[in-house]
This record gives sequence, C-alpha cells and structure tokens, in this order.
Amino acid sequence: MAQTLQLDDLPDLARGAAVLGTGGGGDPYIGLRLVSAELERGRTITMLDPDEVDDDALVVASAFMGAPTVVIEKIPGGDEPVLALRRLEAHLGRAADAIIPMECGGLNSMVPLLVAARTGLPIVDGDGMGRALPELQMETFGVYGVSGSPIAICNERGHVAVIDTGPDNESMEWYARGVTVRMGGVSYIAEYPMTGAQVKETAIPRTMTLALQLGRVIRQAREQHRDPFQALVDCLADTLYGHGCTLMEGKVVDVERRSADGFVRGTARIAAYDGSRTVELTFQNEHLMARDGDQLLAIVPDLITVLDAESAAPITTESLRYGQRVRVFAISTPPIMRTPAALAVFGPRAFGLDEDWIPLEKLAAG
Amino acid sequence: MAQTLQLDDLPDLARGAAVLGTGGGGDPYIGLRLVSAELERGRTITMLDPDEVDDDALVVASAFMGAPTVVIEKIPGGDEPVLALRRLEAHLGRAADAIIPMECGGLNSMVPLLVAARTGLPIVDGDGMGRALPELQMETFGVYGVSGSPIAICNERGHVAVIDTGPDNESMEWYARGVTVRMGGVSYIAEYPMTGAQVKETAIPRTMTLALQLGRVIRQAREQHRDPFQALVDCLADTLYGHGCTLMEGKVVDVERRSADGFVRGTARIAAYDGSRTVELTFQNEHLMARDGDQLLAIVPDLITVLDAESAAPITTESLRYGQRVRVFAISTPPIMRTPAALAVFGPRAFGLDEDWIPLEKLAAG
Repeated sequence: MAQTLQLDDLPDLARGAAVLGTGGGGDPYIGLRLVSAELERGRTITMLDPDEVDDDALVVASAFMGAPTVVIEKIPGGDEPVLALRRLEAHLGRAADAIIPMECGGLNSMVPLLVAARTGLPIVDGDGMGRALPELQMETFGVYGVSGSPIAICNERGHVAVIDTGPDNESMEWYARGVTVRMGGVSYIAEYPMTGAQVKETAIPRTMTLALQLGRVIRQAREQHRDPFQALVDCLADTLYGHGCTLMEGKVVDVERRSADGFVRGTARIAAYDGSRTVELTFQNEHLMARDGDQLLAIVPDLITVLDAESAAPITTESLRYGQRVRVFAISTPPIMRTPAALAVFGPRAFGLDEDWIPLEKLAAG
Repeated sequence: MAQTLQLDDLPDLARGAAVLGTGGGGDPYIGLRLVSAELERGRTITMLDPDEVDDDALVVASAFMGAPTVVIEKIPGGDEPVLALRRLEAHLGRAADAIIPMECGGLNSMVPLLVAARTGLPIVDGDGMGRALPELQMETFGVYGVSGSPIAICNERGHVAVIDTGPDNESMEWYARGVTVRMGGVSYIAEYPMTGAQVKETAIPRTMTLALQLGRVIRQAREQHRDPFQALVDCLADTLYGHGCTLMEGKVVDVERRSADGFVRGTARIAAYDGSRTVELTFQNEHLMARDGDQLLAIVPDLITVLDAESAAPITTESLRYGQRVRVFAISTPPIMRTPAALAVFGPRAFGLDEDWIPLEKLAAG
C-alpha cells in the first residue's frame, strides 16, 4: 500500500540500506542529509508497492555511479540526478511516472528519494540489485530482459551524455563508466526505462521497506540494550533473503585499496581479537568474497557486509580503517538473484573470481 | 553556385583534401572508395557555396573521430556517419538541411560526402578547420561562437552517445574522446549543429573546391610532366591560404609513433639525401611543427604536409615509413585562423608546444 516516508524513517532506511549495500552504494550520511533537507522543506515522498504500479507506467531507475571514494570528496548538490531524469525523459519523449532505486546502498537508496522529493514522483519499493553491485549490467532488470539504455549520465556542471546501446547492457556500462571517469569519477544516472509490468517481473520487491525494518531493528536493539546482530538475524528470517549470520568478529588489520577505471578495488583483512584467525575480504566497490585462508565463507551474490562490532553501524568499503572493531556479517541472496541467468551476470566469475557460487546457507552449515 | 560532384572529381578532391589534411584526417583511399561506390550506384551529391545556404537552415558537421591508425584497420561500412546524423536530428527534434565537413583530410572530406550521397542532403563547400586538427574544440565554428554540442557519436555496432556540454566545447571533446576510445579508437560524429548564418560567419569557405583544385593541379602536372610542387605553389597563390613552399626534400629516417588516449602522437625525422640536414616533424594525428635543429621552419596552425617526392601524393602520419622519399611542404593559414581567438584554441600552446606562432611567410623569408 502506498505510504508516505517520514523524516524519522530516513535514518533507519539509510542504515538498513547500507547494511544491504555490502560496503558499496555510497556513504549513507551524505544522502541522508540531502533527503532530510527536502522533507524539512515540506516536500513529501510517496512510496508505492510494486503491485500498485500501473502496468503501462514508465518507471526509471535512479542512482549515482562511480567510485564511492570520490563521492565523499565531491558531494552532490542535489540537482544532478533530477537533471539525468529530465534528460532521459526528453530523449524518450515521455515523462516518467515513477522512480525506482538501482540498488540498495547508503547513498544510492537516498539519491532516488531525492529525485522523488524534488519531482513529486512516487518511488517504487524495490530495486534492481537487492544489494549493491559495481556495474550497471548487474541488475535484475537487465538479467530478465529490460534494456539498460538509453541511459542519461550527468555531472554537477550540467554536462549530459545520453547513451544508447540497444539491448547490450554490458556495452552501456562500458561507455557510461568511461564518461563517469572523465566526469571526475562520479556521475548521476537515469537508466533502465521500463514499464510497470517489467518492474513487477524483474525488480527485487520491497527492499526499501526491508531496509527500513533492518535499520529500525538495529536502532531499537541499541536503545533496548539488546544484541543488534541477533535482531538482524531475526528480522531477515521472515524475508526473501532468509538467512543472516556473523562470519567473524575482530579488528581491521590491513586495508589495501586502489581507484582505477572508475572503481575502487582492494582487500581488507580482519583478525580475531585473540589472533586465532584472519578473514580476508575482496571488494570492487562492494564486498565480493570472504575467505579464511583456504576456506570460503561467503561469495557474491550473497551479501557480505561489515558492521561496527558494538553498534552494528554499517561501514562502507571506503570507510574501512585500521583498528576498527567490526563484525563481518553475511546475508543469503533472494531466489530471483540465484538463477543461472542471474549468476551469469553477477556470480563470482563475472568478477574474475575463480570460484563457483556456493550458497551461504550451505557454507554456514559447513 | 551549386554544383554536382562527379565521379571523376573524387580522386582529385581526396588528394587535395589530404594535402590540406597535414598528415591527418584519415587515409584518402578508404573514403574515396566509399563515396565512389555511392555515385556509381546512381546517387548524386550537390555542393552549395556557403553564400547559397539559407540563413535559417540547419547545418551539421560530419566526420570520423579517432586515431587514423585505427581507421585503416577498422574500415567504415558507411552507415555509421548517417546514424550519427539521424540521432542528432532526433535529439534536436529537427531535420538537417545540409552537411558541412568538420575538417579537410583524406577520409574526413569523404565522410560528409558519404552522408550527403546517402541522405540526399547538400554539402556546404567549406569546413571548420581549413586543414585537419586533432581535437573537436579546434574548429572555427567554436572559435567564433557556435556550440559543438549536442554531438552524436556512434560506431559500427549501432551504439550511440549524445553528449551535451552546453557552450563548453573542450568538455565536449573530452567526453567524446573517452567514448571514442571505448568504441575501439574510432567513431563517427555529427556535431556543431548551426544555422546557415553561422556557417557564413564561422566556416573556412570553399575548401572543398580548393581541395579539388589542388588535387587536380597535382594530377595535371604529373600528366604533363611538370613539377607538381610548383603547380601547388601557383594554385595556392590565388587562394585564402596564399603562400605554399617546400621546407625540405629527403628520406624518412626515423618514425616514432604511439597511440594513447585516442590520439596518435609522435615524431618523424627526414634527412636530406646528402645528409646535410635533418628536419624533425612533431605530430598529434596531424603535423604540428617542423624544425631543423634549433630553427623553426613551420608551426601550427600553418599547414605542414608530407608529400611523395616524385608524385606529390600526400602521405598521412600513419603511413610514414622508413626510407620514403618525401617533400615536406608548408602552407600558410588563412586570416580567419590567425586571429588571437583562433590561436588561443589551436595555436602552438594549445598543443603544449613551448612556442609562439610565427607566420610561415615570415619564417620562409628568414
């Protein structure tokens, strides 16, 4: 049922989306401030359940694109993602009826809300990744037949590129990344123009309300001095995702991070407090794999997320620092992201990892 | 006066345009074959004098973009530049009334003719560089106030990007180059949409008929066993360009060439047959500077072109080979390309050369 997002919802939503963001999708704080300012100014945001979207409505995915390390140095003004939408609409010759997030993530759950607040368009409760993933072809929209292009890409200087690669979403990503790199490493996009019927077939449904719930149970557990990690596990059990578990707790002892080709790639090592084991995380904007020596603990598209060991506050890959005390938490991926078609696009081998996907539940069961 | 280009005109036009192309603008042979095939198929090309273009006509510049070394490995099918035009028209919501070449050059005088032949649109006798130059902001259209964008860029796979940077033509070049690199190093563009009135104010006029004349006098001199270089000098004397001269004759003894960032940069050294002197040419797609040790012989925007020592056939920078016997020929640039505004955009310092422009006539006079 359509609901109106409240100012008080936003911190919970941003927190929960950052949990699902698996280290990527941008810093939640920046996005939270931008959207809060809109609501404080009296603007409203209506969120539609996917089932409420008209089959012939035009829905457009909204996001920032680029290296999260750059976003925190080059904070958006707020007009950029609206400009991208407007230019895509002009290109299509049709106005959008609703916005949908591209992915879950701290900033990338907020960018579409910003567009919704500024344009008055409703936002669809769902997204195209069910987490964050680093490349634009890695969306369930595309996996299940929607063309990502035409895509509009813009920056804070009002420069716009509209790219059309027909049904070839990998080429769309390739050119869009090139433009984003030349825009200074971050851009704002409007992509995957689709019908309401396509949203119902291809989106991961109700991930915004899930993010809101996850963020809320973390906050409530903190307030009530309960274990926020247990609250997460309990909350996830009743969702499409199903399984959540702590992979390990310890201290960040090493972070290696490099920005190239528009991505931030690297590894982080987390050592148990007693030094008994070390887990290595591999990331490309988002965490892709967690290993304990030879032992695989979790792998993409299952979600690997790093949370503060006390507060369960999500920590993005660009914010990982030596000495942080963290829990590495994993969440099993929903069925729509486990099909052969989905795994071909965002399974481990799509990232050059020489591993097959093994479901988290199976790995966790030993 | 409007004229219809004849099949027999094309080899002369391609040859003369490649002389003005200063080593760039693409291999003339490929373009010649493509356009000849159109005329053999019964299509016609009407060429308009700039004065004949209606002031409110929509005129679009047409070209290939990228490294000439790539074009000879990735020969165009012919649909690419038409697709770029059609997508720009769709973006503008208005059909073009005429085409204008972006630059003079072997292939880049032919690409707009191909578009003219395939679409039936007339081609304007003029261009935006009066020679070839490596970057899109280096057009007199832009120097005198026309926005280069929106620009449509496409490749042989039907991938299209439409880029809009408002009046910022340098940024247009920056993004368009990035897309071109990701398209494999060569693309086809439609850019600088402008009115007929703007064409009259900003284009270098009648460079196609000049190219036709230059190519013709070379051929006729060969046929009549006269000196083709003297024929060039005589022909240029009565034009906007005015001054042409041989800088030196000798053998190519060294070529250093590297493809990076979408350009071919390098140097070529030409030694006199008796070894008495060596001239070094610096190029970025096109020849930029000719030096004999400390002595400057010619520098951009004056035209430096390498011609076969016997036949005066133009040799593009990507075709320079050890052992070729060549003349290095220079042509003074027209007045519209010598203003402070023009020199700021395509004078020596725009290429990172630590030199001021000294007119060829002055250098040649010693």
